[in-house]
Amino acid sequence: MNTDRRTKTPVALLGATGAVGQRFVSLLADHPWFELSALVLRPARQVSPLAEACRWILEPMPENVAGIDFSSSEEIPECRLIFSALGADVAGPLETRLAEAGRFVVSNARSHRMDSRVPLVVPEVNPDHLDLVAAQEWEGGLATNPNCSTIGLVLALKPLADAFGLRRVQVVTLQALSGAGLGGPSALSMTDNLVPVIPGEEEKLERETGKILGVLSPGRDAVEPHGAVVSAQCTRVPVLEGHTECISVELERDAETAEVIEALAAFRAAPQELLLPTAPERPLEVLAEEDRPQPRLDRNRGAGMTCSVGRVRPCGVLGHKLVALSHNTVRGAAGGSVLLAELAVARGAVEGVAAPRAA
Amino acid sequence: MNTDRRTKTPVALLGATGAVGQRFVSLLADHPWFELSALVLRPARQVSPLAEACRWILEPMPENVAGIDFSSSEEIPECRLIFSALGADVAGPLETRLAEAGRFVVSNARSHRMDSRVPLVVPEVNPDHLDLVAAQEWEGGLATNPNCSTIGLVLALKPLADAFGLRRVQVVTLQALSGAGLGGPSALSMTDNLVPVIPGEEEKLERETGKILGVLSPGRDAVEPHGAVVSAQCTRVPVLEGHTECISVELERDAETAEVIEALAAFRAAPQELLLPTAPERPLEVLAEEDRPQPRLDRNRGAGMTCSVGRVRPCGVLGHKLVALSHNTVRGAAGGSVLLAELAVARGAVEGVAAPRAA
Amino acid sequence: MNTDRRTKTPVALLGATGAVGQRFVSLLADHPWFELSALVLRPARQVSPLAEACRWILEPMPENVAGIDFSSSEEIPECRLIFSALGADVAGPLETRLAEAGRFVVSNARSHRMDSRVPLVVPEVNPDHLDLVAAQEWEGGLATNPNCSTIGLVLALKPLADAFGLRRVQVVTLQALSGAGLGGPSALSMTDNLVPVIPGEEEKLERETGKILGVLSPGRDAVEPHGAVVSAQCTRVPVLEGHTECISVELERDAETAEVIEALAAFRAAPQELLLPTAPERPLEVLAEEDRPQPRLDRNRGAGMTCSVGRVRPCGVLGHKLVALSHNTVRGAAGGSVLLAELAVARGAVEGVAAPRAA
Amino acid sequence: MNTDRRTKTPVALLGATGAVGQRFVSLLADHPWFELSALVLRPARQVSPLAEACRWILEPMPENVAGIDFSSSEEIPECRLIFSALGADVAGPLETRLAEAGRFVVSNARSHRMDSRVPLVVPEVNPDHLDLVAAQEWEGGLATNPNCSTIGLVLALKPLADAFGLRRVQVVTLQALSGAGLGGPSALSMTDNLVPVIPGEEEKLERETGKILGVLSPGRDAVEPHGAVVSAQCTRVPVLEGHTECISVELERDAETAEVIEALAAFRAAPQELLLPTAPERPLEVLAEEDRPQPRLDRNRGAGMTCSVGRVRPCGVLGHKLVALSHNTVRGAAGGSVLLAELAVARGAVEGVAAPRAA
Repeated sequence: MNTDRRTKTPVALLGATGAVGQRFVSLLADHPWFELSALVLRPARQVSPLAEACRWILEPMPENVAGIDFSSSEEIPECRLIFSALGADVAGPLETRLAEAGRFVVSNARSHRMDSRVPLVVPEVNPDHLDLVAAQEWEGGLATNPNCSTIGLVLALKPLADAFGLRRVQVVTLQALSGAGLGGPSALSMTDNLVPVIPGEEEKLERETGKILGVLSPGRDAVEPHGAVVSAQCTRVPVLEGHTECISVELERDAETAEVIEALAAFRAAPQELLLPTAPERPLEVLAEEDRPQPRLDRNRGAGMTCSVGRVRPCGVLGHKLVALSHNTVRGAAGGSVLLAELAVARGAVEGVAAPRAA
Repeated sequence: MNTDRRTKTPVALLGATGAVGQRFVSLLADHPWFELSALVLRPARQVSPLAEACRWILEPMPENVAGIDFSSSEEIPECRLIFSALGADVAGPLETRLAEAGRFVVSNARSHRMDSRVPLVVPEVNPDHLDLVAAQEWEGGLATNPNCSTIGLVLALKPLADAFGLRRVQVVTLQALSGAGLGGPSALSMTDNLVPVIPGEEEKLERETGKILGVLSPGRDAVEPHGAVVSAQCTRVPVLEGHTECISVELERDAETAEVIEALAAFRAAPQELLLPTAPERPLEVLAEEDRPQPRLDRNRGAGMTCSVGRVRPCGVLGHKLVALSHNTVRGAAGGSVLLAELAVARGAVEGVAAPRAA
Repeated sequence: MNTDRRTKTPVALLGATGAVGQRFVSLLADHPWFELSALVLRPARQVSPLAEACRWILEPMPENVAGIDFSSSEEIPECRLIFSALGADVAGPLETRLAEAGRFVVSNARSHRMDSRVPLVVPEVNPDHLDLVAAQEWEGGLATNPNCSTIGLVLALKPLADAFGLRRVQVVTLQALSGAGLGGPSALSMTDNLVPVIPGEEEKLERETGKILGVLSPGRDAVEPHGAVVSAQCTRVPVLEGHTECISVELERDAETAEVIEALAAFRAAPQELLLPTAPERPLEVLAEEDRPQPRLDRNRGAGMTCSVGRVRPCGVLGHKLVALSHNTVRGAAGGSVLLAELAVARGAVEGVAAPRAA
Repeated sequence: MNTDRRTKTPVALLGATGAVGQRFVSLLADHPWFELSALVLRPARQVSPLAEACRWILEPMPENVAGIDFSSSEEIPECRLIFSALGADVAGPLETRLAEAGRFVVSNARSHRMDSRVPLVVPEVNPDHLDLVAAQEWEGGLATNPNCSTIGLVLALKPLADAFGLRRVQVVTLQALSGAGLGGPSALSMTDNLVPVIPGEEEKLERETGKILGVLSPGRDAVEPHGAVVSAQCTRVPVLEGHTECISVELERDAETAEVIEALAAFRAAPQELLLPTAPERPLEVLAEEDRPQPRLDRNRGAGMTCSVGRVRPCGVLGHKLVALSHNTVRGAAGGSVLLAELAVARGAVEGVAAPRAA
């Protein structure tokens, strides 16, 4: 499966100790194109082995990660491609600085997502938005991954928007604990309980969806947001991984339930056509059982990159309703970023890095 | 608090061993008007003490329950008022037979809820629907309590419908385990998981809401359902008690968020005016904290009879959204039925049973 | 129930915002002897109402707590009796200073538990150890409550030690989340999981048990520890409240299982004889059902002050084994301290404070 | 990895729908020696695909399982080796009948475990007990796998018994939900709770341990049980998979903690020497971190076949104590049986079935 190590592209990772950082490490540990060659941690965390620098929760830890060098953000080793799993508090200026210095940064942080010249990309949904990178003033580039709850939503909406037009969307999310990171809510607060808010999440879901589904016209240096109105209610539930979303949509054109299902099930896009290594065979999988998708049973479909959809049925208010589930730290974060980097490489957006022929 | 035992009205309970039946026993064990004088169980379950007849989960069991007589459904002792916590599989014909035999049945079962001459009542919402009893062909009477998830919804909707008119409602429920009864989902299936369906629940929510908010015109023998369209998505989450509902509403008239909050917070109705013993001081309590209501922290407000509301805010799609929480086995089942019986007595609907003057 | 407010003894509480502090507030809110008249919080936390100073988890908050004054530790209002729910990091020196200044401190902190002149008391087990206070060099006094897991253990061991002599004890604890406080383990770390260690807990259990079961001979100024060897293994499990302990004991004299059960069930002690307000009718309750005690079903027996015992049976290695359960923040912390203060008052150990005659 | 399909040994599986049966299917779906060629289900369950015959909980289901034939127990296709994941209620007579008919049955059921001529084997602990098969009166043979909680215990005890002699053992188990099967305890009973008993489990643990650690002298037709006394307390905790055991041992010879750790860490046995396909590299892994092993983080070590050990330290009562964790449906059930079958084949105990040379 692996390409020869000598031909792999060296990559660095900013932040490797959190719930998302650990997923990056796992996904990059055996990646066919990329070689994880530097972990950029705060000095206090530069402890080897990595498991001692953090509370590793994705047992077992990949063995070949042990020997990776630590570096500070001041002296990241030579590599064109850099992934960022930093918190938004530190990500913004550092990512800008790296892009200025000629690096191509693929970030999971929210800092630059809504910047007009920064593409916010779900590879199956708006791969062409990567063209925005050409309009960036930096020597390098910067592309971002949306919020974890946005990704499942736009994956489910995209084929419907294409086939039937999209007018209005209601979504209630039941989000997993890992989305709050390692320092998330206490067990004392979440046992026999749920919390009906995730601060800032609803706004992110509502705004990011518009940008991702929007149009980047040729020659323009900003995305025209999609006109659909999105209203979100976000809750935290005692589930480890996997965000469940109860979605209602109003389409522009009439559609039978069977047509909606067909559009969802048939969805394939650039990552599948390009055979990108992290692309799932099916970005969406429509489940027939009435009681699915369920987080524990379905979050790992397509190695965590497939968004599962179920219960597609009529909605008396908006027309159609359905339930979508996606793995929030894989598809919704690290896996989404890795797939985005693969897409950027495959499209030639990362200067000096070419996709192996095998792909 | 207790009225003299000699002046209390004797009542019987059909089904006392399930999650709802146990709540009935607890609520009736020390009731000021009613004296629980017979437990109607299947012969196989007629084991004393009651705790041995079932898996008692509401520790501690009320002490004065130990001496209550068991009886079979063939020979229920003389008492006008009968509560039914039976499953729908056996409730229907038995309840009809008892009403024919002159008993007044207050039922939590779904069997007769949608029968045109059977009132489906939430005491604060549609107390006048009890007048339907007069149109029943039986010597006795039958009134029903809605589904547990319906009750929280209609309590929150009622003041909005009254103040602003109600056009469309979207609701996603996050329902507690106790709603599935003692034989509900296994721990193996619900740990680190949730289930995005509760069979039949969405239809019940959508239909019952229309009947409860509907109009019973004088002299008519059926309720005219409210015209608002309701669309529901129901999920089961790993919470013991307390149904959380994420609601979006489209009102007929424009309203500021502050006005919506004011209408909810000011809501009082017949049970409060009549000082019914089980009526909470406030049927709705609007919580100001952004992260409330939460099931474990808020389900017991008003001794489980207050529906907590929070996060009232604008909705880009329908206009307003909010989160409601109600205790599903108290307000949503046994407590709702007991309050309904109190209301029926107070309105003189139960022949031969009068409310104590103290109330 | 309440004694007249004018005749109640004013008390202050050090620390009221944590899991144990909140229990103190709840237990003192309506106490027949004590009037909670000052909350000693760090200045940053002196926010009214109290619910805004902390994350209140014991809904509903007692209403009469709203008006209680805050004070800093520098200027605690005049009151003889002070409860301490502080963390061990700050408790030690402050408690000493208060005792020097003439206050009688009843502390749940571990700072002074093993000091030779400080009594470590479970009121039913070693009430006479309170005599140590007379040997203290301070103008006031200081008495302490053991660790939460110790209390359940010594309650179960005491009648066995008295009746049969106690030689060796093995205990494995399955401890609740609230024992780790509000800032305890994350839900991400405890869902579908348990942790096989509680740092420092095993040593506390092993040492404190010896001191509590030990002998304070007349005229001596230190307790002679009991000679029984105790070996503990402590684990944290995803349970909100209630520590379960699997105990094996080697007795000095042969005993039948029935005799062991009889000794446990018959246990009554000074708090019961003195009719102390917080004393449960039965300090130990032996449950006959094979699958009890269970934390959620049994922790609230005796308003959380009764330790439930079950599964008393022969042990092939040490002779006898059993399971004990006690509510860790009530009996094992705040309730234990309140009962201890009542005992101290009843024994005349708190200068200037007398027990009401009603008791 | 796979041997050619034509050269694989066809095997049948009795019971494939339960928690253990599903593990068997997963482990046999891609086994290098064995080809799962028949699923013996009750006629009512013979529904294709298998996922519809049961509630499949080990997502994703192996794809190549879809085409496997169902058969009834009356007409099991020709194959020498049969695995049994049946419940003890039906396993006993059927397994005997199959052994009489010339099949070699490897059973996870408890029915025949304590039969004197039936070996009860943990491959790393007592591989030689398989010689008992030669003493069986049947044309075929029968070997059994111990109870899930026994396996982790004897793996940890074996190197200690060998190195230092074993006198007495105390064990408290914290067992996972999957051990109770798909129809195990309800979520309503296990949320915020644990149950301090598993009926029959303690006796199994105590008796099976003696047989497994016992001696089968050459020419004898029964095992002489080990003389160590074992006392067990078993509890059920809200964990999906992975039994945690808190163990105290009294050894015959003095040993330092470091020696005990060394003996555990160095443990290798027949399955490792024979390079059996399901054998983990290390049957025991000693973890250095104070808070390990933890079920969710450590149960999958060695693909679920490694028993993790931690917290090895002195015990004041018996001498040494430690915590062991093993995956109850892999190492403790299906994986243990598959490894046992591999061992039986490698030792030539299954007539007509030879181990591939590759092994």
